[in-house]
Amino acid sequence: MLKPLGDRVIVETQEDKEETVGGIVLANNAKEKPQTGKVVAVGAGRVLDNGQKVAPSVKQGDSVMFDKYSGTKVEYDGADYLVLHEKDILAIVE
Amino acid sequence: MLKPLGDRVIVETQEDKEETVGGIVLANNAKEKPQTGKVVAVGAGRVLDNGQKVAPSVKQGDSVMFDKYSGTKVEYDGADYLVLHEKDILAIVE
Amino acid sequence: MLKPLGDRVIVETQEDKEETVGGIVLANNAKEKPQTGKVVAVGAGRVLDNGQKVAPSVKQGDSVMFDKYSGTKVEYDGADYLVLHEKDILAIVE
Amino acid sequence: MLKPLGDRVIVETQEDKEETVGGIVLANNAKEKPQTGKVVAVGAGRVLDNGQKVAPSVKQGDSVMFDKYSGTKVEYDGADYLVLHEKDILAIVE
Amino acid sequence: MLKPLGDRVIVETQEDKEETVGGIVLANNAKEKPQTGKVVAVGAGRVLDNGQKVAPSVKQGDSVMFDKYSGTKVEYDGADYLVLHEKDILAIVE
Amino acid sequence: MLKPLGDRVIVETQEDKEETVGGIVLANNAKEKPQTGKVVAVGAGRVLDNGQKVAPSVKQGDSVMFDKYSGTKVEYDGADYLVLHEKDILAIVE
Amino acid sequence: MLKPLGDRVIVETQEDKEETVGGIVLANNAKEKPQTGKVVAVGAGRVLDNGQKVAPSVKQGDSVMFDKYSGTKVEYDGADYLVLHEKDILAIVE
Repeated sequence: MLKPLGDRVIVETQEDKEETVGGIVLANNAKEKPQTGKVVAVGAGRVLDNGQKVAPSVKQGDSVMFDKYSGTKVEYDGADYLVLHEKDILAIVE
Repeated sequence: MLKPLGDRVIVETQEDKEETVGGIVLANNAKEKPQTGKVVAVGAGRVLDNGQKVAPSVKQGDSVMFDKYSGTKVEYDGADYLVLHEKDILAIVE
Repeated sequence: MLKPLGDRVIVETQEDKEETVGGIVLANNAKEKPQTGKVVAVGAGRVLDNGQKVAPSVKQGDSVMFDKYSGTKVEYDGADYLVLHEKDILAIVE
Repeated sequence: MLKPLGDRVIVETQEDKEETVGGIVLANNAKEKPQTGKVVAVGAGRVLDNGQKVAPSVKQGDSVMFDKYSGTKVEYDGADYLVLHEKDILAIVE
Repeated sequence: MLKPLGDRVIVETQEDKEETVGGIVLANNAKEKPQTGKVVAVGAGRVLDNGQKVAPSVKQGDSVMFDKYSGTKVEYDGADYLVLHEKDILAIVE
Repeated sequence: MLKPLGDRVIVETQEDKEETVGGIVLANNAKEKPQTGKVVAVGAGRVLDNGQKVAPSVKQGDSVMFDKYSGTKVEYDGADYLVLHEKDILAIVE
Repeated sequence: MLKPLGDRVIVETQEDKEETVGGIVLANNAKEKPQTGKVVAVGAGRVLDNGQKVAPSVKQGDSVMFDKYSGTKVEYDGADYLVLHEKDILAIVE
């Protein structure tokens, strides 16, 4: 199991293929749409300057929307995940 | 339904077409005017360093004015929206 | 009516024409003088890290001086305005 | 009268002429000396994160020394002034 | 023994070889996967602006995942370690 | 007399000559040594976010060591001084 | 004696020679190892925003490890030292 640190959130996501010709990425349209995914784990939250911990405002199971180029891709147990900072999440899709 | 996170605000907007020739954007005038839209959802607000949550100063239904290039475009249920940080909103149009 | 957000101030201003030749801006002198305008609306003020709101130090009707290139131009009801952050205002002209 | 905002200070100054050849500034020596001027007005001071206002440490009539390229030049009632942030003032000349 | 300072964490890691041709690094694939390692030492934590010390959220023995290019490589007693800031750790692998 | 503002310190210093050929500075060695000088005046100190004033940790008469390129050169009463921020002082030479 | 200011630490260090050909530094390997040294003096510590002073977490006599390119080299009494900020120290070598 992956346990994200601080204000991080781990998301399971189906990434669109990017077509490449000779290694050059061919974006299919100039203005990329954000991507959605399902939250699989959330960190304990970030610590404020007064020592108070702020719990994340998303929870496991939430569908979330985020910028396509946010976060760090990680592989775990054969599956691909994205580790995002909570501030990179635009909205919860309900 | 889209539920924006933190100090984010979701706005419904009619975007002006940009003319392009061969993929080059042709701005119709050098000094772009800001754009207006209607607020459809607001986040819970941002958290201050002392742990206090600051409620957004716009509400659902408000007409707002913002810089044309602010925010992130999202598509939801066939419609286009713009996700803005509250600080990107210039003024409420009353 | 335009209601500026946060520490923003809306100013009515007579902008000097900029001469252009073939779209190139011809500044009439190298060191531009700041511009003056009349405050038509002020926001509720900025929120400090301790949650306290700081009221703007300019009020409706004040003549103010600001850098020529500060702020965002907005059009409302056929007139042109400038939306400034209070910190962009240099001085009140009394 | 000009009333500077926040931590700003207005200074009356005799600026040295810069020689130019074809619009190119010819600095008379590579390491420019700071400039002095007389304070004609001071703002109410800056507001700290705890809401406390810090009064400026210069007062009207003080002779002050500042970097030649600090501040914004303003013209008022036919005279030239310089609007500086207090932090741009190096020293009071007593 | 190495005792990391502040919010630093020392990690023991098996680094993948990078193939080079004439000194040029040949990345084996464009999107590098993060790396994992075992925590061997943790600092006392970072000090908040209110003087409070925040203990690290990882402990000795934890398996952690981090960006391949985070941290500083150090050699100690013939072995290679990585000194990371706690904020560079993406997740604990349980 | 020069009275430095805030966290500034005024230092009297003997600057090494820099050889120049055609206006190009010829550094006599690639890694410049820091310079020393004698403190002639100190400001009242910087103001913290809680309103508290922090007195400088150097005093008049101290010999101090600082980076050769720190600070602003000022001329006063025929002598050359350097106005430094206290944080630019590396060490007191006792 | 050198008395470092604030959060500074003075370290005595044996620097590896860098081979140069015609003044070009030839790094002996692409990924430089950090350097170690012995702490000879520590400052009083840094001042937090609440006025509290944080004592350094290294003491005179400690062996410390730091990035090869951190700090400022100073010469004192014929010997070479390095003035580091405490945050540039990676670990204490025990």
